[in-house]
Amino acid sequence: MSDAAHMRVALALAARGLGNTWPNPAVGCVIVTRGSTPAQTGGDRIVGRGWTQPGGRPHAERRALDQAGAAARGATAYVTLEPCAHHGHTPPCAEALIGAGVARVVTALTDPDPRVAGKGHALLRAAGIAVTEGVLGAEARALNAGFLKRVERGLPFVTLKLATTLDGRIATASGESRWITGAQSRRAVHAMRMAHDAVMVGSGTALADDPDLTVRDLGARHQPIRIVIDSHLRLGPDSRLGRTARQVPVWLIHTDAAPMAARAGWQATGARLIAVPEAQGHADLDAALRLLAAEGLTRIFCEGGADLAAALIRAGLVDDLAQFTAGRLIGAEGRAALGALGLAALAEAPRLTLGSTSAIGPDTLSLWHISP
Amino acid sequence: MSDAAHMRVALALAARGLGNTWPNPAVGCVIVTRGSTPAQTGGDRIVGRGWTQPGGRPHAERRALDQAGAAARGATAYVTLEPCAHHGHTPPCAEALIGAGVARVVTALTDPDPRVAGKGHALLRAAGIAVTEGVLGAEARALNAGFLKRVERGLPFVTLKLATTLDGRIATASGESRWITGAQSRRAVHAMRMAHDAVMVGSGTALADDPDLTVRDLGARHQPIRIVIDSHLRLGPDSRLGRTARQVPVWLIHTDAAPMAARAGWQATGARLIAVPEAQGHADLDAALRLLAAEGLTRIFCEGGADLAAALIRAGLVDDLAQFTAGRLIGAEGRAALGALGLAALAEAPRLTLGSTSAIGPDTLSLWHISP
Repeated sequence: MSDAAHMRVALALAARGLGNTWPNPAVGCVIVTRGSTPAQTGGDRIVGRGWTQPGGRPHAERRALDQAGAAARGATAYVTLEPCAHHGHTPPCAEALIGAGVARVVTALTDPDPRVAGKGHALLRAAGIAVTEGVLGAEARALNAGFLKRVERGLPFVTLKLATTLDGRIATASGESRWITGAQSRRAVHAMRMAHDAVMVGSGTALADDPDLTVRDLGARHQPIRIVIDSHLRLGPDSRLGRTARQVPVWLIHTDAAPMAARAGWQATGARLIAVPEAQGHADLDAALRLLAAEGLTRIFCEGGADLAAALIRAGLVDDLAQFTAGRLIGAEGRAALGALGLAALAEAPRLTLGSTSAIGPDTLSLWHISP
Repeated sequence: MSDAAHMRVALALAARGLGNTWPNPAVGCVIVTRGSTPAQTGGDRIVGRGWTQPGGRPHAERRALDQAGAAARGATAYVTLEPCAHHGHTPPCAEALIGAGVARVVTALTDPDPRVAGKGHALLRAAGIAVTEGVLGAEARALNAGFLKRVERGLPFVTLKLATTLDGRIATASGESRWITGAQSRRAVHAMRMAHDAVMVGSGTALADDPDLTVRDLGARHQPIRIVIDSHLRLGPDSRLGRTARQVPVWLIHTDAAPMAARAGWQATGARLIAVPEAQGHADLDAALRLLAAEGLTRIFCEGGADLAAALIRAGLVDDLAQFTAGRLIGAEGRAALGALGLAALAEAPRLTLGSTSAIGPDTLSLWHISP
């Protein structure tokens, strides 16, 4: 099998960590022993598999090496990200690979973390290990988009969910919205929540739907942080989020305009209050997301509503868009999925690139990437 | 090969006629000779192929028999619709099949036309021909939905096109709409026009876009009728449609409220004026479509605008919906694809069943069927 084929396995393992390794990257690693003659390479054996564990430790390499044991000696390690070189909570993975006697290390990506940034590769080479870099680099970059954006730009990667009728509506004029999409789409939404560090909504949606924003029915051992952008703390602590804030974290983004009484009420629930500057009467979203990135969040799943979605788009803070479309029609009186964008001309309309599209039960799901 | 496999070929041939056989159905026929032993059936030979020719004649069976010549003797004929039994402009196809000496006829559908309605099958059987009915009946029914709806319900089959941004918009607030979808989608729209008997728009769209609604760049020898629903004849005869009405037919649906001067102006262009009753200040769409069916139209492709689309949906006159979605965002100020539906509750929202979804260039295309 080719280096790319093994790296693809490592990437699939890495993806298991998405949503529960922050602030660390979700890394995957496989340790492979080769057949002893070139003709035998079809007989490659994977002797160790690992991925970053919940909370970010142990690292993928440590897990894969533990599984491989003595078989790691002379083997090739495929790692989706440059092995770390700095002494943190654990000894650096580069040293662990050297200690285990691997003969070759193949990586997909250089770690942009300034504490690593090429030092991992250099350590390995200095120890006489053959190093191949950049295998499936684009795929690894996409998988680690959250970690990379946080390190490189100080912002989390934001995926915006739109779940609408065929004509782009999220509710009837009277606000009725349950359920527009089918059970399979709602299940996919829960899976998407699980692969993100946090789920985020605006105060209007929180007030209208009183959601709990947790991952249900997928055997989740981990729940994403639940974030409400609520400049004036309009949502009450008696909401479902407030009542469950000690079980699953709730972070409220507010401005100085939030009444002191509301702050006190929310403090009592165990929720975390995060004050951000105001911009045009609302929480400054760029500032809010920078604070969230500073807190370690790498991947945020935004589930609306229309005004928050539009504000994020206008501010250029959305990276991906997950579009669920149901086979229903509501008509022009219905509520739009996206608020005002204030475009002066069609040429200003944000452009998105199609990632994939498919049927999902009775609905369709299209994944789009916003062009920078 | 199985009966179904041969019928699938016949259906593919039949589809070539869609849009240019009205008021006749688009039929396909293959004549197959079998290997002389059961083990040789893999060696089936198609000795004749035919499909309904433009204008509805010659019929598919006639074409296939002419191609087969003497080879038709003892062969099996696969026909997507029951062969006709009545003497019209041409001798009935059932007699032609008998005369050619075919041994067996396989059909997909009984012709609902009261002049046929089982008589074709009966004629064949009376002549000693083995007849198998109903092979790929559902597929044939879908292909002939326009012909069947016209015969059975006195209405044409209507496909509604929606071409929108991700957020369901067809234009910016200022009306800018060219181009939201990509070149591949626009080409697909032209192919869809070609497979319909007529293309239809509302007067608002005709006034705003001054479209010509023809099929371009696909080597079309046939153009669909161009229909404008224009109760008050607001569109002027100096429009692109008016100036080209002698090259490609233009039919204008209006009410008694249309000024006499406008009628006279349009008469001079060669366009056809069709007066229909009024309903709530607009042309009665049910009455209009019944008239169009009476004129022979079986398949109509409606390209908007939002008000006509909503009125057709409200009246239960839409059968299929072709949804093109472009990777653009316009926001809530943009123009909606669909006007008001006046729903009292979400339960009233029309339901659609997904037929297919796929990428088309940078856009997505989903085909939906409206549930009756």
